[in-house]
Amino acid sequence: MIVVMKPGSTPNEVAHVVALVKELGLKEHVIVGEERTVIACVGNERFKELQRVETSPGVEKVVPILAPYKMASAESKKERSRIELITGRPETSIGGRRVGIIAGPCSVESRAQILEVAHAVKEAGAIGLRGGAFKPRTSPYAFQGMGIEGLKHLAEAREQTGLAIVTEVMSIDQIDAVCEYADVMQIGARNMQNYNLLSAVGEKRKPVLLKRGLSATLEEFLLAAEYIMARGNEKVMLCERGIRTFEEYVRNTLPLAVVPELQRVSHLPVVVDPSHGTGKSHLVPAMSRAAVAAGADGLIIESHEDPEHALTDGAQSVTPEVLARIVRECRRVAEAIDREV
Amino acid sequence: MIVVMKPGSTPNEVAHVVALVKELGLKEHVIVGEERTVIACVGNERFKELQRVETSPGVEKVVPILAPYKMASAESKKERSRIELITGRPETSIGGRRVGIIAGPCSVESRAQILEVAHAVKEAGAIGLRGGAFKPRTSPYAFQGMGIEGLKHLAEAREQTGLAIVTEVMSIDQIDAVCEYADVMQIGARNMQNYNLLSAVGEKRKPVLLKRGLSATLEEFLLAAEYIMARGNEKVMLCERGIRTFEEYVRNTLPLAVVPELQRVSHLPVVVDPSHGTGKSHLVPAMSRAAVAAGADGLIIESHEDPEHALTDGAQSVTPEVLARIVRECRRVAEAIDREV
Amino acid sequence: MIVVMKPGSTPNEVAHVVALVKELGLKEHVIVGEERTVIACVGNERFKELQRVETSPGVEKVVPILAPYKMASAESKKERSRIELITGRPETSIGGRRVGIIAGPCSVESRAQILEVAHAVKEAGAIGLRGGAFKPRTSPYAFQGMGIEGLKHLAEAREQTGLAIVTEVMSIDQIDAVCEYADVMQIGARNMQNYNLLSAVGEKRKPVLLKRGLSATLEEFLLAAEYIMARGNEKVMLCERGIRTFEEYVRNTLPLAVVPELQRVSHLPVVVDPSHGTGKSHLVPAMSRAAVAAGADGLIIESHEDPEHALTDGAQSVTPEVLARIVRECRRVAEAIDREV
Amino acid sequence: MIVVMKPGSTPNEVAHVVALVKELGLKEHVIVGEERTVIACVGNERFKELQRVETSPGVEKVVPILAPYKMASAESKKERSRIELITGRPETSIGGRRVGIIAGPCSVESRAQILEVAHAVKEAGAIGLRGGAFKPRTSPYAFQGMGIEGLKHLAEAREQTGLAIVTEVMSIDQIDAVCEYADVMQIGARNMQNYNLLSAVGEKRKPVLLKRGLSATLEEFLLAAEYIMARGNEKVMLCERGIRTFEEYVRNTLPLAVVPELQRVSHLPVVVDPSHGTGKSHLVPAMSRAAVAAGADGLIIESHEDPEHALTDGAQSVTPEVLARIVRECRRVAEAIDREV
Repeated sequence: MIVVMKPGSTPNEVAHVVALVKELGLKEHVIVGEERTVIACVGNERFKELQRVETSPGVEKVVPILAPYKMASAESKKERSRIELITGRPETSIGGRRVGIIAGPCSVESRAQILEVAHAVKEAGAIGLRGGAFKPRTSPYAFQGMGIEGLKHLAEAREQTGLAIVTEVMSIDQIDAVCEYADVMQIGARNMQNYNLLSAVGEKRKPVLLKRGLSATLEEFLLAAEYIMARGNEKVMLCERGIRTFEEYVRNTLPLAVVPELQRVSHLPVVVDPSHGTGKSHLVPAMSRAAVAAGADGLIIESHEDPEHALTDGAQSVTPEVLARIVRECRRVAEAIDREV
Repeated sequence: MIVVMKPGSTPNEVAHVVALVKELGLKEHVIVGEERTVIACVGNERFKELQRVETSPGVEKVVPILAPYKMASAESKKERSRIELITGRPETSIGGRRVGIIAGPCSVESRAQILEVAHAVKEAGAIGLRGGAFKPRTSPYAFQGMGIEGLKHLAEAREQTGLAIVTEVMSIDQIDAVCEYADVMQIGARNMQNYNLLSAVGEKRKPVLLKRGLSATLEEFLLAAEYIMARGNEKVMLCERGIRTFEEYVRNTLPLAVVPELQRVSHLPVVVDPSHGTGKSHLVPAMSRAAVAAGADGLIIESHEDPEHALTDGAQSVTPEVLARIVRECRRVAEAIDREV
Repeated sequence: MIVVMKPGSTPNEVAHVVALVKELGLKEHVIVGEERTVIACVGNERFKELQRVETSPGVEKVVPILAPYKMASAESKKERSRIELITGRPETSIGGRRVGIIAGPCSVESRAQILEVAHAVKEAGAIGLRGGAFKPRTSPYAFQGMGIEGLKHLAEAREQTGLAIVTEVMSIDQIDAVCEYADVMQIGARNMQNYNLLSAVGEKRKPVLLKRGLSATLEEFLLAAEYIMARGNEKVMLCERGIRTFEEYVRNTLPLAVVPELQRVSHLPVVVDPSHGTGKSHLVPAMSRAAVAAGADGLIIESHEDPEHALTDGAQSVTPEVLARIVRECRRVAEAIDREV
Repeated sequence: MIVVMKPGSTPNEVAHVVALVKELGLKEHVIVGEERTVIACVGNERFKELQRVETSPGVEKVVPILAPYKMASAESKKERSRIELITGRPETSIGGRRVGIIAGPCSVESRAQILEVAHAVKEAGAIGLRGGAFKPRTSPYAFQGMGIEGLKHLAEAREQTGLAIVTEVMSIDQIDAVCEYADVMQIGARNMQNYNLLSAVGEKRKPVLLKRGLSATLEEFLLAAEYIMARGNEKVMLCERGIRTFEEYVRNTLPLAVVPELQRVSHLPVVVDPSHGTGKSHLVPAMSRAAVAAGADGLIIESHEDPEHALTDGAQSVTPEVLARIVRECRRVAEAIDREV
């Protein structure tokens, strides 16, 4: 931590801060500059409440040096993580040379629908099937998902296709059911800082697809991953799904520079969601290719046989035909950067 | 709903959209302009999935007309709501002529601490005491609150001071305990779209202080209120606590125009949190006064006897002395707009 | 400047950075921590290109310590600046105990219009008349202002009312005319980083009303002021006019915490524009009061006799009747904080 | 234009709006819904001040239907534009099948520097050389560019390499010199709404590289292009260079979905600047590949022989070696989408 004092701070104020720094278990180096005094603090600050030094008289600002997460950091694990969506089935991995595609409808709407789309998605080249059984809906009056019945349809789709099942878990009481029927627990963007839920999925050993919150910083995103990992579940995939900005031609802005940056600071695989990441089906093909070119380890794409009649998220879903074309295009882009789809 | 077709859309495309509109139970008016065709749709669209029309061929965009919430809207209730934090104690109301002040520490840290601050807050002129027993912390390694024991200390503080107790509920399993010991359930910004939690507090009859998410639109904010109200709990207070923007001199940007706007579109009381709304204790006095001048029905302010040693949120807490000065200043501003504190 | 090295940086990398730091004329303190090495650099860094150290091998990040502006800073001048809009007429000051109101239409549309509104504005209690003769319009097809003729009408309005004339200067070749007819040169938000224009108005000695850019940081805002001051013109007023965020119920988000913050870091007067700051006339009264309560030194408000027929910015203009009410309300709020209007 | 009335609007209010709509030269269709009345207006609204209807009593909101630009729109020109940076030299084109690379230092620093980098850039595969002679600097104390002398060095670099010269023009008085020595006039992000400058470059016939403002909407961006085109200069290239958001690991957020969206609504070529678009040299390679995969027609990349000693923008410059690798990678990605570099 670096403490920058205000111009004109007094020796007493500096001494007071030094005492606080020592209380925190850190060692101080006081550096008197021409205009300002700076106190550089050495020691393990990672899990300390540094910001409270900010209120001390004469302090201008506090700059932490160490990232506040550890297990999620690139420093704690040198090789990049590779996660099998279904344990023992390496062809369902995310995080290796191969870029894994997960696709499917926003919601499970019926047995027939999910089985049909599962076969189409499999044929297009996906390794995972997405589909919501429990749906977080902005409106209390909207379709809230099929619940357990939807989970059973998803499990049947896995039987028929071998696809790994990725589905959202919205609350602690849904975790057991999701773990029984599905392979990957998805934490939605709106729950990225639902810490009780994060801790609870951390107790399980199934992989977690953790979506970045709409306005979460990377540090907050990695701390959410750390919540899960700190409980013992290290199978976390980081999923970028777009952020909220002033832009109007998209529902969300997809900031792809997050892909190489997350890969620099963390060992966890990075998945991109171009469907929520734009909110517009006509932008999904270009952004899927761009995500692969940027180095994404996986894609998660919404696909529906009949987007006009999807119960949820129709505006950002692509048909299975378009999905198949996207996968073909992404395969060529992946090869151009010495990866494969 | 207005459907705007692309330039050059074909009669077949228009007919297809008209059929979809009818399926949605709406009546269409097709208006052929010089460059574009527009389809104005009449009927109760409020709770329909309008966006899926966007995927139809030839459609440029879809503009909803009706707000998707109802119970929270100004149209559903002409007079403004007034909520007693403790039922039967009108002096603890938020929403009338008097601006209610809620203050207290970020977290309950000990019995002595919360009792001391409660008396100071009471003396300063507050009607409510805030204090977290369950703490949503960005880091899994940070202090997570005292839990039930903290709730008991809060209840004791109410015994001694008469202050209404406002405390956060983070998960469904905490609701019963919070309702037993406290008066107001606070839903934190990070849980504004935790729909299971919203529905569960909607089953209770204690007032709810609902904080706006860091990047929630007003529509999303009011839909979150609607979630609670749709289950029968109409005692919802809307709390603005700052949004995330590019600004760097604050932790959050406090957009006070939200106060008159929420009061225009909703009958629910509006509370402002200048502590989280800036993240900097030195900005809290000015923003408290500004919030009152903008017409806020209440303020919620973090106050700690010793911010340097607060276990959480020290950087934005003010001492009880500063709090007393803020209340005095706000009282004068309130009188200038014919209200009182 | 603090240079934070990556974990695992080598002694050679540190030595290389130290050499660079010396090249910059700074003195280094190398602090070896448990996980990272930090290099604290002392000396006058204010006007150096510090960021290039960021590209050196082994460097994680660079944190500047000194603000890069000087003349605009609170450190360079202890008392707050007070600026007479018309030299020798202290009743036209911005920056003292009295909150100065500037009002008028977006554009000068005709002699009759500007004279009528000038009298109304004067009667309402304003000290300045705003009105654009040169208009920066988003569309090349929109009304671009009356030019010199408009300036002459403004000058005539000053003759009749004694109001100081505030008008925008969009390009260098307009400066002489604006200085001939008007009292205050306004730099619009879109030109806040038009450095050639800033330098040119810096050569004059008339006051400048500098509007903050839609997404300018405070540092960039104060550096724009510094551009003007560095050329010798110290009569700069900082004007907050709203920033661009994701919010949809306003055209811009008005971040009032900027008022106390700018007054903390700079001696220059701070003016708030609630008209552009919201873009909605119905929000202007509440935000005017809030700005005064937050401590603004002045307000600039768009007022038009007939907003429905205003050639520009009708949606955010208030009628003279509403303006008079706003001024009355602001007067009461000002008195509540021991100031006056 | 669609005018949405408030619930409970009166027949008189509707009649008043209808009269205003007729004044604007539009034809109205009044549609009375269950809760609200909507007035759909037909006719050429493109260049009208629609927003002033918003102030009429009883009006809730106004939704324009037609985009306010015309020459820049895809509707006005069916085939995509292809622009020769140097007239008569098709190998310097941007906008065809080939993705054009422009590279070079932020600033011209000396004759030797620019000649050296020009040869390196040429060898790497670029078609254009960028380099600033007039520099818009945030600080008035920073290096402001070599001016005319810098332009002469650029012209010499073109003589030696055949590269087209792209350089920024910051003010009207620089236009003639830039046109004399350079091939493409760059309008910087900070000047995107400097309308006098836009109009002036519109009078010339050299190509313009127009950078998007940090917080400009696409509509504002295309209106800026329209300003130039309306004066007769149709050779406009749209350049995305990153937007300002809350993100902290980058200087700007690069929203690549803008590429397919601009290509959908406009016929103008789209160039991406991954250097300013991230502000971090280590993110430039991945984002260059992603931009090509998203369909960009060109890239503009900052490259400097010795970024640590660059007078400007060192933190985002790559060395010529890295540039050569980026071009090789982009070539493979381009081939994967049936284009070439």
